[in-house]
Amino acid sequence: MRIAILIFDKLTALDAIGPYEVLSRVPGAEVTFVAKEAGPKRTDTGFLQITADASIDELTDPEIVLVPGGEGNRPLIADEEVLDWLRAVHETSKWTTSVCTGSLVLAAAGILDGLEATSHWAYLDRLAEGGAIPVERRVVEQGKVITAAGVSAGIDMALTLVARETHDDVAKAIQLGIEYDPEPPFDAGSPDKAPPQLVELIRNLETQGEAAAAS
Amino acid sequence: MRIAILIFDKLTALDAIGPYEVLSRVPGAEVTFVAKEAGPKRTDTGFLQITADASIDELTDPEIVLVPGGEGNRPLIADEEVLDWLRAVHETSKWTTSVCTGSLVLAAAGILDGLEATSHWAYLDRLAEGGAIPVERRVVEQGKVITAAGVSAGIDMALTLVARETHDDVAKAIQLGIEYDPEPPFDAGSPDKAPPQLVELIRNLETQGEAAAAS
Repeated sequence: MRIAILIFDKLTALDAIGPYEVLSRVPGAEVTFVAKEAGPKRTDTGFLQITADASIDELTDPEIVLVPGGEGNRPLIADEEVLDWLRAVHETSKWTTSVCTGSLVLAAAGILDGLEATSHWAYLDRLAEGGAIPVERRVVEQGKVITAAGVSAGIDMALTLVARETHDDVAKAIQLGIEYDPEPPFDAGSPDKAPPQLVELIRNLETQGEAAAAS
Repeated sequence: MRIAILIFDKLTALDAIGPYEVLSRVPGAEVTFVAKEAGPKRTDTGFLQITADASIDELTDPEIVLVPGGEGNRPLIADEEVLDWLRAVHETSKWTTSVCTGSLVLAAAGILDGLEATSHWAYLDRLAEGGAIPVERRVVEQGKVITAAGVSAGIDMALTLVARETHDDVAKAIQLGIEYDPEPPFDAGSPDKAPPQLVELIRNLETQGEAAAAS
């Protein structure tokens, strides 16, 4: 099973690595990190370099494609070469997926037109502007298109995808292998659970990031 | 806050990237991926290359040190240069931490002698051999030493660590930022919850990995 994870400078690492850790454990999986241009990419914090082993030109027929989030994916929204690749890949993919603001890129490619989809909670409005029907769920399945909410939601999405593509027991075995039995020390992982002042803080930080990226 | 994450060939990516994604968001954090020798490292699947920006020689006084797991950390257990670095770093660290089988390396350095600690569930026996007192908890705090269970437990550990080092609200804000409101599609993330045949399957796969690494 050929899996392409699209990366770029200033991606959010966990958006990509969470699903990678799940999907790479499916028997027969072949995961390739791809980018517009192959080579090392710096994550959004600047602290981590991960490498795209191939350019998108080199992998045109993945069965699964995944687009992660991070402020660095905003330029992709206007990059016709990347969007054309996504459209072409989507024609033949078994699954087209995103994590966090990766859904904004899928929307820009027209892949989410009229479909329910999700994104990081602070970006659901942006998703609507892109033609999707934003919904506040952690994993949104619409036929072969699966979108996940912010960052860590990619782990839940990938387990769901493995169950659909193979068998529940394969997903359960992988969940057990990565000991995914979460016990967050706080219950603050979504805007309806976190203190309102923290919701405002994070929303403002995200908005500032957008403004900085656009300037 | 200087944070060193020790990487190596054949690490399990999520062990390192989960905590990185949390810790790197603490205001003032400076995360450095270090290795015995700087440069690119391949994860245990072979599908992903991440880079150590510095050698361990170059970062001798991190306030937080984190050792992830993955079959590639077994050689470190007998690598006196790495163990000496860990011992020296532990002298002055504010927090010495591990994820998954990273605790086997801490044990080899003598850091877990007589302390309660955890590891991936399939390796708790090995941890006892290393002088620690293995406990089946997801995050085990013993003074400044914090160990996490398998792979994904590093996210919970890092949020706990952020709360201890800064303030609960900082941890909550980061949890909200990475939308860590987990909804695994199955309840199979620990050996007491997963079907017994899957527990045996994963235990055998892990043991085979050990045998192959040792051969």
